[in-house]
Amino acid sequence: MYEYSHGGNAVYENGFKDVLDLSANINPLGPPEKVKDAIIGDIENCDRYPDSISSGLCEKIAEYENVSPDWIVCGNGASDLIFRLPIAVRAKKTMVTAPAFSDYERSAMSFGSEIVRFILPQAGDFDIDSSFAEAVFKEKPDLVFVCNPNNPTGRLTKAGLIREILDSCGKTNAYLAVDECFLDFTGESQEFTSKGFLERYQNLIVLKSFTKIFGLPGLRLGYAICSNKDFIDKLLFHGADWPVSNLAQAAGIASLRGADDYLKKTVEHVSMERGIMETELARLGYRIFGSRANYIFLQNPYTFDLSEELNIKGIRIRSCANYHGLDETYQRIAVSTKENNEKALAEISEITRSYIGDN
Amino acid sequence: MYEYSHGGNAVYENGFKDVLDLSANINPLGPPEKVKDAIIGDIENCDRYPDSISSGLCEKIAEYENVSPDWIVCGNGASDLIFRLPIAVRAKKTMVTAPAFSDYERSAMSFGSEIVRFILPQAGDFDIDSSFAEAVFKEKPDLVFVCNPNNPTGRLTKAGLIREILDSCGKTNAYLAVDECFLDFTGESQEFTSKGFLERYQNLIVLKSFTKIFGLPGLRLGYAICSNKDFIDKLLFHGADWPVSNLAQAAGIASLRGADDYLKKTVEHVSMERGIMETELARLGYRIFGSRANYIFLQNPYTFDLSEELNIKGIRIRSCANYHGLDETYQRIAVSTKENNEKALAEISEITRSYIGDN
Repeated sequence: MYEYSHGGNAVYENGFKDVLDLSANINPLGPPEKVKDAIIGDIENCDRYPDSISSGLCEKIAEYENVSPDWIVCGNGASDLIFRLPIAVRAKKTMVTAPAFSDYERSAMSFGSEIVRFILPQAGDFDIDSSFAEAVFKEKPDLVFVCNPNNPTGRLTKAGLIREILDSCGKTNAYLAVDECFLDFTGESQEFTSKGFLERYQNLIVLKSFTKIFGLPGLRLGYAICSNKDFIDKLLFHGADWPVSNLAQAAGIASLRGADDYLKKTVEHVSMERGIMETELARLGYRIFGSRANYIFLQNPYTFDLSEELNIKGIRIRSCANYHGLDETYQRIAVSTKENNEKALAEISEITRSYIGDN
Repeated sequence: MYEYSHGGNAVYENGFKDVLDLSANINPLGPPEKVKDAIIGDIENCDRYPDSISSGLCEKIAEYENVSPDWIVCGNGASDLIFRLPIAVRAKKTMVTAPAFSDYERSAMSFGSEIVRFILPQAGDFDIDSSFAEAVFKEKPDLVFVCNPNNPTGRLTKAGLIREILDSCGKTNAYLAVDECFLDFTGESQEFTSKGFLERYQNLIVLKSFTKIFGLPGLRLGYAICSNKDFIDKLLFHGADWPVSNLAQAAGIASLRGADDYLKKTVEHVSMERGIMETELARLGYRIFGSRANYIFLQNPYTFDLSEELNIKGIRIRSCANYHGLDETYQRIAVSTKENNEKALAEISEITRSYIGDN
């Protein structure tokens, strides 16, 4: 039953020490410096219940996202909010793309919703196009999940296309959840975010997370943005009380202070390093799909299992074998620090050249 | 919709500073000393995903509870596990006592389960007796919640009676969740815990929390114990990924180190202070129900609203007006430090004597 494995979990199997983990897509710059002090400064408050609706944090997120504070619900990681969504919607039918992050399906299954998978064709680089909006209109789900950029492909969906999907959802009384957890890594969030549709579309929920962009997966902090006050109340109601610890609230507030600089450096680093890695991987014969996120998505044309070969060398990447719509030839590799990326590239190069030499 | 108010939330309405909060039932000794260092020592790990199943913490809890580590699921507070239960059971009908902690109903409602409330009569001090076991057999629910000691009454249910309920549940294929979050405050956990039934009864779940007994409500950490491996897997599956932050895992492990001494002091303090408070409150004319937990449950025989009067003085207690089966005459007051208890008693005494003098 508990079969849904993610990147980042594997490192606990044999202890941390000698593993280079490129299976989880975390900001390689590490958490903003102020976070540590904010946590230390808030430890004394562990003897009180946290603010159950994270009011102070919501205000800071509102400034950061340029939306109203009462449009925001914070959760114990974006995963918490993904699990609340089908319950809040009372979803009988949930539509997802394949491939996509597996928690969308898991949350729908958990509530007892039927799941409709829309297969994204490899021929179109697994991009979402208008046929998805048409399929939504035809299938009439209650809830639709779109990941932008998609995980694991890193491919972006244009705002105009999201609007087509929103219109389909509007006509069929469906909610659309757009997961933008990796969007701030692309440097193109202004152009690709769905936030501009929030005011007009009461059926839109945008999901974000501190986990990835602020490099804080250990802390558990995510949020949903929605202009529909009744739906916000439902998201608050349909889940555990006090979902966000006081330490996570304090760390979240600290992360957002001076975030612009940190994000600028992040985007520059990721863009530069992703380019270097993709060029080298393409040169080695791997098929690259042009991810815009902080991870590389590729298909291995050779017969060896790249994940397993790297695992032997102490490097973990994310085999996409357990994503619907993909198989074991697809791999996701996080863009990490320059040093880590070089180490990974050197090993991949050696493994690949040795294979080619033998064949 | 978001109408479920708890103790402990009220302090955020006007800021912390001048409020004495006796509405939340937290260990007045404060968190164990080692917790702070454990959190500081683990901040560097915030850049990794936490161990998704809290393996290290489960081992320490297993030692503390004297059960097998694979019987344990950790959650983002006991509330997280309470919300997972109806989903994991696929509960169509859930049975609760009234009064009891409101999250049982909320979690059932959230999944869409019918709720059957068994009214505990005031004449029997709101105690659970055999008629509840009979009602369970008659109603045939899928899931039953029992709080032991009950919240807000503080009344204990004997292990023999829990066994009667378990047998009723066994005959009708129901799961029984026994919430023992306040049991360690009673000093009678050995005698009253349901843990002894876990091995034999695969349909039993015992709920515990670090929130109350270790004074860590801000951190969010609770756990469920169950000997049914399939059901443990379901509890893991039906909820957000990585539910427990790395800091909460580290703090939990630290709390359990040398816990015996801390718990002994806690029980001594609570027992002594509860006795002093109850004696004085009874002398002032309040009806005391003989709570065994770290809170006092009383009925106000006078026509003034004790919660509101104390609120004016900057003291928050828990009005039980929004508990099913109770009304605004019932109040729950946390047993706090000697100083806080004396302050509360002095105010209650003044309010009461002034009322009696006027009438």
